[in-house]
Amino acid sequence: MLMSKLIGERTREAPADATIVSHALLVRAGYIKQLAGGIWSLTAPAHRIVKNIERIIREEMNAIDGQEVSLPVVQPRELWEQSGRYNSIGEEMVRFKDRQQRDLCLAMTHEEAAVHLVRDGVKSYTQLPFMIYQFQTKFRDEPRSRGGLIRVREFIMKDAYSFHATQQDLEQYYAKAFTAYENIFRRIGMKNFIAVQSDSGMMGGAIAHEFMLLTEIGEDTIAICEKCGYKANVEVADSVLPLPNAEAEQALQEVYTADAAEIAQVAELLGVSADKTIKAVVFLDKVSSQYIVAFIRGDLEVNEAKLKKVVKMDLVPCSLEDSNELVAGNIGVLGIEASGAKAVFDKSLQNTFNMVTGANKAQYHITGVCAARDFPNVEFADIKKAREGDACPKCSCALILKNGIEVGNIFQLGNKYTGAMGMSVLGADGRNFFPIMGCYGIGLGRSLASVAEEYADEKGLIWPIGIAPFKVYLCPLRYDTPEVKECADSIYASLQEQGIDTIFDDRNASPGFKFADCDLMGIPIRVVVSPRSLEAGNIEIATRYGGIKEDIKIEKLFDRLSSALAILSVL
Amino acid sequence: MLMSKLIGERTREAPADATIVSHALLVRAGYIKQLAGGIWSLTAPAHRIVKNIERIIREEMNAIDGQEVSLPVVQPRELWEQSGRYNSIGEEMVRFKDRQQRDLCLAMTHEEAAVHLVRDGVKSYTQLPFMIYQFQTKFRDEPRSRGGLIRVREFIMKDAYSFHATQQDLEQYYAKAFTAYENIFRRIGMKNFIAVQSDSGMMGGAIAHEFMLLTEIGEDTIAICEKCGYKANVEVADSVLPLPNAEAEQALQEVYTADAAEIAQVAELLGVSADKTIKAVVFLDKVSSQYIVAFIRGDLEVNEAKLKKVVKMDLVPCSLEDSNELVAGNIGVLGIEASGAKAVFDKSLQNTFNMVTGANKAQYHITGVCAARDFPNVEFADIKKAREGDACPKCSCALILKNGIEVGNIFQLGNKYTGAMGMSVLGADGRNFFPIMGCYGIGLGRSLASVAEEYADEKGLIWPIGIAPFKVYLCPLRYDTPEVKECADSIYASLQEQGIDTIFDDRNASPGFKFADCDLMGIPIRVVVSPRSLEAGNIEIATRYGGIKEDIKIEKLFDRLSSALAILSVL
Repeated sequence: MLMSKLIGERTREAPADATIVSHALLVRAGYIKQLAGGIWSLTAPAHRIVKNIERIIREEMNAIDGQEVSLPVVQPRELWEQSGRYNSIGEEMVRFKDRQQRDLCLAMTHEEAAVHLVRDGVKSYTQLPFMIYQFQTKFRDEPRSRGGLIRVREFIMKDAYSFHATQQDLEQYYAKAFTAYENIFRRIGMKNFIAVQSDSGMMGGAIAHEFMLLTEIGEDTIAICEKCGYKANVEVADSVLPLPNAEAEQALQEVYTADAAEIAQVAELLGVSADKTIKAVVFLDKVSSQYIVAFIRGDLEVNEAKLKKVVKMDLVPCSLEDSNELVAGNIGVLGIEASGAKAVFDKSLQNTFNMVTGANKAQYHITGVCAARDFPNVEFADIKKAREGDACPKCSCALILKNGIEVGNIFQLGNKYTGAMGMSVLGADGRNFFPIMGCYGIGLGRSLASVAEEYADEKGLIWPIGIAPFKVYLCPLRYDTPEVKECADSIYASLQEQGIDTIFDDRNASPGFKFADCDLMGIPIRVVVSPRSLEAGNIEIATRYGGIKEDIKIEKLFDRLSSALAILSVL
Repeated sequence: MLMSKLIGERTREAPADATIVSHALLVRAGYIKQLAGGIWSLTAPAHRIVKNIERIIREEMNAIDGQEVSLPVVQPRELWEQSGRYNSIGEEMVRFKDRQQRDLCLAMTHEEAAVHLVRDGVKSYTQLPFMIYQFQTKFRDEPRSRGGLIRVREFIMKDAYSFHATQQDLEQYYAKAFTAYENIFRRIGMKNFIAVQSDSGMMGGAIAHEFMLLTEIGEDTIAICEKCGYKANVEVADSVLPLPNAEAEQALQEVYTADAAEIAQVAELLGVSADKTIKAVVFLDKVSSQYIVAFIRGDLEVNEAKLKKVVKMDLVPCSLEDSNELVAGNIGVLGIEASGAKAVFDKSLQNTFNMVTGANKAQYHITGVCAARDFPNVEFADIKKAREGDACPKCSCALILKNGIEVGNIFQLGNKYTGAMGMSVLGADGRNFFPIMGCYGIGLGRSLASVAEEYADEKGLIWPIGIAPFKVYLCPLRYDTPEVKECADSIYASLQEQGIDTIFDDRNASPGFKFADCDLMGIPIRVVVSPRSLEAGNIEIATRYGGIKEDIKIEKLFDRLSSALAILSVL
């Protein structure tokens, strides 16, 4: 491709709202252009990277027997009602009416459509397992799109759906998919990625993993044990607290605490540490409008994702302005039943002694609360957020927390969708059953941006050779001199003949200007043809990473290119 | 791929609403499944065909210097207001609001987004010409989706946009694109296609061509001159009528015609032929609510597309129940101004003598109307539908009419979009100008269905080798016998190694059952491994078209396959 005709303006200035490197550089290098919030156009170089990522994913999906299919973007309400998600998914799903006033939506995931496609044709367990996948445009009305391609509303996703006769078969396949995902991220050049246990969210199902690129700018937090390798999104991460020390049980006592409402205020007023108090955090169930009170040790935080799983409700945090039963700032474990709210107790309260809790009465707290004595019949659940330094649930070493960007996810779905949608298959035992599903997603644009984030330097982008839009930046200097033109044109023709993707900078511009563009665009190999080096029969070859920079004889160029391509592909 | 795991149920029964061959067979062969009206899922074989078509299109687009990009599906209202199409496009464009109540739409074409992408970066005429293209999902809320993939609401389209400094440069490029389109349709295996002049419709612009597959089931009608090669969609087709014979001018006379309103009734009552009457057809301008009366010779029909171009209004045919000014059945050319309606006169009325027209008064007509004498100051325009047998506008031979399916289109757009969207570029003369655009579309699913339509026979689909989902159907009979299994497995491994797309029918089923599936699915080459032929050291090779059917020695199989592939690719 000719640089003089390449669409995509390169600029010095980053967009005013660009706070992360990949956003700034992808815009500055002319790779992407914003059409609306979270909606981007890609120019040819960015599209080429997406296609390279797509090719790698396709190869890995085919290697685990995937069948590439195509499922629609626009889907009817009735389909989503079969799974119950038409109502359970919120505003992130776009809904509209067609000209005949029928309800349609933009599918943000394709479990329903996948089951619809295979439901009739798959009649027997002998047709299992199988996996179908697609690359498809999806739109999710994200409330906070940001960061260029990191968090968008419209994106291309590879989504895959596997169907199995048994949980064991799913687990075997899930392990294969896990390995395929590791291959994919490794092959697209990502270095610092890990797989972590995750929350299955709106997908349902029990076991799920996210593939995370570890990076400061990640919005997810991951708890990691560097000793045993335990890794989990804090949304699901377990961690172990030391058992409370046994103490002599004090008597319950109601104490006046005036307007002290926050844990810090109450603890200070009563002269105890925060871990001797019981925090109450209130949520509202959007469906029933019931209040849910989560009790947890005062120094800990409630993990909303864990709580949702425990209560199986669609909760939102809430303030208490309009509650007659719950006294904001003074909610306590004793007598909470009277309020009508549902109480959930974190495991951190188990076996505690002499704690402070609200008195369920304005301006009063109760001291001396002992779990075994004062609330003996409650069930404790894990609803706390893991903290840096908490003990690993597997080996008890201290956990560390890191930020990450989710670049892919895999879920074990169970038979939620096949059951709800009536996909019944004849088993080996002559009885019908609902197949067990797995699903597997990767966002292509976010993968691109994540790689950009991981590699970029002060000069611009750096693309690993496996996904680079062009492998070679062919850069004649003084292209208007006949010798340079003849040599550069001939190299360009040979590169094209050999199928090496090349961008040919045919512009009349200074070396510095051209080199800066090449660096900003992140093309792995730069080949420079200049009058001076030609005099010595030389060509310059330099790489954007890997440290190659040398003059070589013209006749050696293609040998050196081959070896450079090989070297870069294993760096 | 293994047939035992292939998703897509093959059935004997066609869908009840399938009236055309490709619809019935694509469903029966398990290639496509309907999710909602005009919205289809594709299984792996259909998706493979689409990908093969995509590859061919991509090669041809790259060969004319196309840059593949990616433009969003969901677009903001503001973008479409820049071109004025947010309002001018009707219900076929889906509009909705996002969670922040901003207006978005599903782009049904991408002129606006293309200009948005290139507007800032292209500053000088030296960057012209260039072309960008994409493969993208589009949704158009067609009122009458039908015929499987022939007329759908959601589809994948290749759309391309070129930008030029001069009309001459556009025309040169347009000719290249025209040739690329011919290459594409030829390479995907289409035989009976032609390019015809067409209406530019909502795209605007002057010159446009459609590529049509000629077929009985086509919804478009094409006027063709078999002598000189003139071809045009009847929406724009010109045709020449013989000049009216000169006659002695009669006096105007008002005659009572009672309830005779239709041309046939009036002609019979007055004892004249239909071509001696003037027909009035009434339309309504949706924007201004003004009536438009189209006058045309009584034996001809008004071409709505031509009329729209002449009056530059968004017309709909209408009845006259609520008009006080126009007298239904008696509308005439004389005194029509008084009604306030806009009158348009077809060229067929030029130089006519002694015609019958309505009297603009209930139950009366006027006879003896002579154009030159009685309505001398009107402008005549071509608003008639060409008829079979009319004279060709180029060579005067008789035109014939054929039906066709539009499989692609190309448009010269002028600077409608660059002008409206302020894409201003510095010219060689130092003055700014708006680049001239061309646009070029192909629907991939409709191309697939059109090829299916053209090739199918009574046994099922037939895929030309260039786009076939699998080139080879490897069919062991008695796969449970060790010799057959060993031979078939080894052939399958070799086929995969050589990159020959193969579907391997590993099922335990009868020969008839398997052959019927192979025929229904339309796989070009069938390779049969059976106990009987193995005894003689033979394999059977047979083709779905081209008439090859023979037993060959096992060791000759791959030579014969190569030659068969070569033969099929030129048939």
